[in-house]
Amino acid sequence: MSMEIVDLILKGDIRSVSRLISLVEDNYPDAYSLLKILYMHTGRAYRIGMTGMPGSGKSTIIDMMIEGFREKGISVGVIAVDPSSHITSGSLLGDRIRMQRHAIDEGVFIRSMSTRGHLGGIARATRDVVNILDAAGKETIIVETVGVGQDEVDIASIVYTTVVVLTPDFGDELQTLKAGLFEIGDIFVINKSDLGRADELEHDITEALEITGRKDGWRPVIIKASALKDEGISEIMKGVEMHRDYLNEAERLPQKKESISEEEVKGIFGDIVMKEALKKVRSRGIYSKYLKMVSKREIDPYTAAEEMTKEAGF
Amino acid sequence: MSMEIVDLILKGDIRSVSRLISLVEDNYPDAYSLLKILYMHTGRAYRIGMTGMPGSGKSTIIDMMIEGFREKGISVGVIAVDPSSHITSGSLLGDRIRMQRHAIDEGVFIRSMSTRGHLGGIARATRDVVNILDAAGKETIIVETVGVGQDEVDIASIVYTTVVVLTPDFGDELQTLKAGLFEIGDIFVINKSDLGRADELEHDITEALEITGRKDGWRPVIIKASALKDEGISEIMKGVEMHRDYLNEAERLPQKKESISEEEVKGIFGDIVMKEALKKVRSRGIYSKYLKMVSKREIDPYTAAEEMTKEAGF
Repeated sequence: MSMEIVDLILKGDIRSVSRLISLVEDNYPDAYSLLKILYMHTGRAYRIGMTGMPGSGKSTIIDMMIEGFREKGISVGVIAVDPSSHITSGSLLGDRIRMQRHAIDEGVFIRSMSTRGHLGGIARATRDVVNILDAAGKETIIVETVGVGQDEVDIASIVYTTVVVLTPDFGDELQTLKAGLFEIGDIFVINKSDLGRADELEHDITEALEITGRKDGWRPVIIKASALKDEGISEIMKGVEMHRDYLNEAERLPQKKESISEEEVKGIFGDIVMKEALKKVRSRGIYSKYLKMVSKREIDPYTAAEEMTKEAGF
Repeated sequence: MSMEIVDLILKGDIRSVSRLISLVEDNYPDAYSLLKILYMHTGRAYRIGMTGMPGSGKSTIIDMMIEGFREKGISVGVIAVDPSSHITSGSLLGDRIRMQRHAIDEGVFIRSMSTRGHLGGIARATRDVVNILDAAGKETIIVETVGVGQDEVDIASIVYTTVVVLTPDFGDELQTLKAGLFEIGDIFVINKSDLGRADELEHDITEALEITGRKDGWRPVIIKASALKDEGISEIMKGVEMHRDYLNEAERLPQKKESISEEEVKGIFGDIVMKEALKKVRSRGIYSKYLKMVSKREIDPYTAAEEMTKEAGF
């Protein structure tokens, strides 16, 4: 692994970008020495998160947004954090293929990331890839996640503006979405709004937002769209711009960037500390001793963990 | 907080169980002294995980299974790990209400848990609640999770048998399910199989299972069901029994219990170590020093975390 790849990435070379992303996904240890250098060239891209249920049309919206950005001459990087098994084909893959029409455009980079196997979790890998694309000069970076489970909370700690995509046919299951979504969503898109019941969903979102409240004073925008018909896309783009303007007022963006950095440092720090701590208790036999005791229920796991911490000298 | 509640829980007192669960959810510090004692009385319940997309009919299946267990005189505890915002009403709440028909039955305990706010994450809180129900004498414990995202991987490290519920109308989106699901699923239920396309989904699951492979030698069972019509429920119950018999052979269950204990200890240990480590670097100003440097991009977050670890003496 030479430093040449760093230079190539900084010049925007797509093949080098792809190569380093693969190394990051595979936890290749030397990748970190490159990420360290690249980090110094980050912080310029505008970062947008796009989250929603499978089938909500996130990919189609992103596809249209890429077009919008490209018309303005803005380069775009897309990271689809994909819980897909990549085993079977289907609609999602179809969306990816649709997006790939931008593949011949040098100003567009699209990458799916599997959520499997990465130590430190997908959040870490995603941060790393965002940083790589940022360093490679992509002006806008869109991170797409499936918004069910814990992941969508992570996305807000990576991006500046979070777009939540909902559909009327999921109206009945709005309650299955985490309240967290209402806390992190800066823009709510009601996609497939031509299916009807969009007004009902809008009412439900408005109500949920009122109950949840916002600490930062931003009033989330709700947009009715029909991505397949190219309806509402310019409104979404405008919404992102409005939120960006809002963040640019009163030093909110620097604050957001700082908290993104903090999460980054804290995550890496936690991984190192945990690795060292486990190494310590494992090498001294402390770990196996307490595990055996817990298995036999001679001690409870809380006390065992406390004792391990003491014995390891933390 | 007196020790009286421990005695009451060990006698199966439902109100005390509820009370302690609430304390665990709220991170009440003294709850842990009670959990420590209760842990010594755990390990008797059989633990079943039930995971699937919102709307797949998990709750209906559980509702029918409760009936099946009760007919055999087996007591049941259900923990629905619920990403719900509890803000709006709808089908999910409907399912819960349906399940609550068992509420007057002393042998059944049903509890929804919110995924919000718990330090150490929902996995920790769920483990704690499983242990409480186990100590309270519930013979079967069913943990229900929404199987999109990272959560379903956690469930397999809490339970003995994992049931994955899929529906034919999600066939197109099978690829959006994590490959992890195919690794952890011991039983696959094709619910709403009367909607058609069940054979297609069965074929896809079989194929996915073949590609994924299993390390432990268990051959996952695929069952077509229609929970609303009470079709396939006894087959699911039988499937769980078969897997239980399989685990009981050749010391597999003790091994599984050991790895559950290990995850438990490791998780608590990690939390304590991370808390201590952050306290150390924060109190000495190390943390804020490096954060400032990273924010100004005078240093990258990887190096910052490494330096912090060194300065804190880990």
